[in-house]
Amino acid sequence: MGEINKEALFKLGYGVYLVSSLKAGGKLNAQVSNVVFQVTSEPVKLAICINKSNLTYDYIKNSGYFGVSVLSEAVPMTFIGTFGFKSGRDIEKFKDVNFIVADSGTPLITDYAVGIMELKVVGEMDSGSHTLFVWELLSSQVISEATAMSYAYYHEVKKGKSPKSAPTYVS
Amino acid sequence: MGEINKEALFKLGYGVYLVSSLKAGGKLNAQVSNVVFQVTSEPVKLAICINKSNLTYDYIKNSGYFGVSVLSEAVPMTFIGTFGFKSGRDIEKFKDVNFIVADSGTPLITDYAVGIMELKVVGEMDSGSHTLFVWELLSSQVISEATAMSYAYYHEVKKGKSPKSAPTYVS
Repeated sequence: MGEINKEALFKLGYGVYLVSSLKAGGKLNAQVSNVVFQVTSEPVKLAICINKSNLTYDYIKNSGYFGVSVLSEAVPMTFIGTFGFKSGRDIEKFKDVNFIVADSGTPLITDYAVGIMELKVVGEMDSGSHTLFVWELLSSQVISEATAMSYAYYHEVKKGKSPKSAPTYVS
Repeated sequence: MGEINKEALFKLGYGVYLVSSLKAGGKLNAQVSNVVFQVTSEPVKLAICINKSNLTYDYIKNSGYFGVSVLSEAVPMTFIGTFGFKSGRDIEKFKDVNFIVADSGTPLITDYAVGIMELKVVGEMDSGSHTLFVWELLSSQVISEATAMSYAYYHEVKKGKSPKSAPTYVS
């Protein structure tokens, strides 16, 4: 031991998600994330990890709410490309997608989603380039019985890549 | 919306891990966890979520170090049973397993592991029943090219269950 083999990090398991939020004035944005997970069961609390330089970070800080859509294996790579590799500062990501608006006003994208969740931020922890937000689940729905996509499937079957802003980027 | 369907939580993706630690005096313990994930890439920081009532929680608080072994799909359910459904307060979990001792003294179990990591706690966030520890990676190794087990595979193929102390337990 004593050395770091970053290949070992690729063995960790994740899903693939859209994280969506809104800003005062009704502007909407969403991004891809693989770091969404449950931290307690009673009450249900979850956490996500968002890069501070991302527009979604600003929107979450602004509204205190956000949505998560769990993506299925059927999601096209062009869809991932729009939400994962382009910034809402440059394009209007909600132009051609189907979504519902939850009670908090948070947009929840239903395209290629197997489940959606509406969430409220209840805590955060600074983690350098990223912030770990802890949130409470306000509402959730199952959208489809299709298989949720694992991060391993995204890499190995879809041949997907990770942007440099991802918490799990390994050069 | 407005209602919580807990089935949606089952769509979130995780791996399956052993989290091991030691206590002053050389006592060793390990438990199963599914909530281990990377939070930043430079420097590499990761997080785990541990139930405060678990013995491993005491050991991590005591030593400030712990190990993670990423389990493969080949792991027998008896092995999961020992580490995931029994307490180190009642049995000696390290009696019949192979492990290496990292520079910090932390035991890293190699049986059924595809990768192992030695970690140092650098932060923590209270989350009610659980604590979210943030840690820095000290060393890591790939042990095998076998497929790392996803939490979905554990439930659907291995027919595994989650103990009530798990962050993702859903009644």
